Amino acid sequence: MIRFDIVSQGEELVSGSTVDTNSGWICQKLKERGFTAGRITVVGDELDEIRDALSEAAGRSRVVICTGGLGPTSDDLTTEAAGHAFDRPLAEDPTALAQVEERYLARNRPMPPANRKQAILPAGASLLENLWGTAPGYRLDVTTAAEPCHLYFLPGVPSEMKRMFEAHVLPDLASRFQLPPKRTLLFRCVGLAESEAAQRMASLVQPGVVVGYRANLPEIHVKLHLDPGVDEKPLIADTLERLGDYVFTVGGGPLAEVVGKRLEARGETVATAESCTAGRIGADITSVAGASAWYVGGAVVYANAEKVRQCGVEQTLLDAHGAVSEPVARALAEGIRTRTGATWGLSVTGIAGPGGGSAEKPVGTVHIAVAGPSGTVHRKIHVPFDRTRNLQMTTALALDLLRRQLG
Amino acid sequence: MIRFDIVSQGEELVSGSTVDTNSGWICQKLKERGFTAGRITVVGDELDEIRDALSEAAGRSRVVICTGGLGPTSDDLTTEAAGHAFDRPLAEDPTALAQVEERYLARNRPMPPANRKQAILPAGASLLENLWGTAPGYRLDVTTAAEPCHLYFLPGVPSEMKRMFEAHVLPDLASRFQLPPKRTLLFRCVGLAESEAAQRMASLVQPGVVVGYRANLPEIHVKLHLDPGVDEKPLIADTLERLGDYVFTVGGGPLAEVVGKRLEARGETVATAESCTAGRIGADITSVAGASAWYVGGAVVYANAEKVRQCGVEQTLLDAHGAVSEPVARALAEGIRTRTGATWGLSVTGIAGPGGGSAEKPVGTVHIAVAGPSGTVHRKIHVPFDRTRNLQMTTALALDLLRRQLG
Repeated sequence: MIRFDIVSQGEELVSGSTVDTNSGWICQKLKERGFTAGRITVVGDELDEIRDALSEAAGRSRVVICTGGLGPTSDDLTTEAAGHAFDRPLAEDPTALAQVEERYLARNRPMPPANRKQAILPAGASLLENLWGTAPGYRLDVTTAAEPCHLYFLPGVPSEMKRMFEAHVLPDLASRFQLPPKRTLLFRCVGLAESEAAQRMASLVQPGVVVGYRANLPEIHVKLHLDPGVDEKPLIADTLERLGDYVFTVGGGPLAEVVGKRLEARGETVATAESCTAGRIGADITSVAGASAWYVGGAVVYANAEKVRQCGVEQTLLDAHGAVSEPVARALAEGIRTRTGATWGLSVTGIAGPGGGSAEKPVGTVHIAVAGPSGTVHRKIHVPFDRTRNLQMTTALALDLLRRQLG
Repeated sequence: MIRFDIVSQGEELVSGSTVDTNSGWICQKLKERGFTAGRITVVGDELDEIRDALSEAAGRSRVVICTGGLGPTSDDLTTEAAGHAFDRPLAEDPTALAQVEERYLARNRPMPPANRKQAILPAGASLLENLWGTAPGYRLDVTTAAEPCHLYFLPGVPSEMKRMFEAHVLPDLASRFQLPPKRTLLFRCVGLAESEAAQRMASLVQPGVVVGYRANLPEIHVKLHLDPGVDEKPLIADTLERLGDYVFTVGGGPLAEVVGKRLEARGETVATAESCTAGRIGADITSVAGASAWYVGGAVVYANAEKVRQCGVEQTLLDAHGAVSEPVARALAEGIRTRTGATWGLSVTGIAGPGGGSAEKPVGTVHIAVAGPSGTVHRKIHVPFDRTRNLQMTTALALDLLRRQLG
């Protein structure tokens, strides 16, 4: 058991203006590699506080990941605090200075004098190059009460921190602690509850395989962490059989991207007719850059008059069945398909809540339809959350119904 | 200066499956009341770790807020850890037990035997009733090295924690430390940078008034915390003069709700024609429950052919100026207004990135138009972020252009 601590530095974290998302991400990465989480300590811009947090963490753990406080301004104090904590004089590191200058050169700008501070490191530090920002990171090996501790100092900006962690920290830890190489298989599911996924996977017990779950609504992620030598192929087949077609990708991107890639490969397009979701499906689709290759647009048919005008839904149909009904969902999907000339028409009509429900059609009742070259399919769902999450889940399940038509 | 610490307990927080949003929220609330943040310590389900975190926090701060670990299962260890940390024997509290039983009675269910554990408190604890869940909270007053420390134990579920914090902890702290009652004025702005807001407010210096800023993209929040006796009226007028019509509400709801209320009061409606935002404005509008009173729907005109078909944009206009242009934005707004019969037509066409830019129309170029009873207004903006944030900012600025037409 190798224990790690995290020290997360930033006044914005203790003033409540920013949520510390770095620490959880780091915990997950290190846990996947077999490390055991000790404490996360979050401190603001107080030199003594940072110093104490660093030396206490180093006294408790073999590995300490420190994020934040490596910037050029006077309230960036982490390096100074590390110097105090471990009795290391600070000095400008020429290689670090060259790297900071290089980042500015790459942007055709001279390095501001203040940034020179970012090249000052505690004695004995090993530089970790930052290719994604100006603050170099470093590793510091110290010996506390009993055991040696390796401290890794990284910038607090999440995008830079994550890249440096993957590029420098993980490989360094793997060689230092002789960790076996790990592979992770990620199964992304939609429409399946986390408890149901766990139940389906429960009897998959195999040495060298650790199964993890994560609800990332509207998705559920099932992860398999494999030791070296474990054969992926039968595991993937077994897992797919257990989770069924709730899995929309193994290791791939979000649902809209999966749908988009399939449509693009088939040379097909889709148009949307959204009532309750009111644009959320279009927004989700166009979060994929390049969606114009397979998405033409569509209609937001919030008012019933718009269902008639934009999709040619018959008023008699609305009168007979109500807007939230299978016939109207089908008519919307077929109408938008015909009018736009897209290969597929995707429609949604439902009651997102909190109001608008009835005994016959309670809040959460949603009808989805997909019209395509060989007819129209329909699905009635019930979403049980609040308005926001109901609409989010509906959006995912609508895209998923389309995915299931694409083979 | 009264210093506080937070101890946030939960295995899910150190395994990375849940982000600790409680601590930041608590920091903000206590900072607003004049307390100074010390450290946030996050620990998992290790008894000794929790015990140490609690006793160390109590040794550093006058106030410690502890969240999590008050549930009925065997891995809920906070109370046991508190007993160890402060040498307090644990005993079942009859009032606490009655409260847990009452929660179940209210749901017409018998209390499971396991939940009896939630009524066990450290000796000397003062009960804090939980009206929103089964885990009672409590306050524990201890004396460490020098000063007395007040520890507040609350459940980790954010909705319960927040309500108990507002109902019990804040009033208790206010009376204990004789805090003056505070009022907060919240000015919500859109289209103004945080630094610009701070610059405009800089010379507002007045005893009993503390100004705070928060970037909550696409919004900027400016908060005035007022001591008792400070007159609100001239301050509001002064602040509105400084921030100008970037303020869309003082103390009110989100932008879409403000727009909706104004439209509803005027008995008017709006329809949308979205190109790059592709439904995000419709989604934002319909995040307001009851939006059907003032929103009819509209068109997602992602492909140029849809701009022609759904809004009657002339192909010659598209050929001459391109889709991302003032004339096309105007034609979209006017087209959707005429076709839907809505009072207002709101349109957006732009380049969200990462691709699609040119020297003449770089990524981030967006044209917005609002067509109304007395003509059409247009605004060209440039959004400088990544695709996701560009579209988020564009959505807000589009709604804001409509707001500005509504007087």
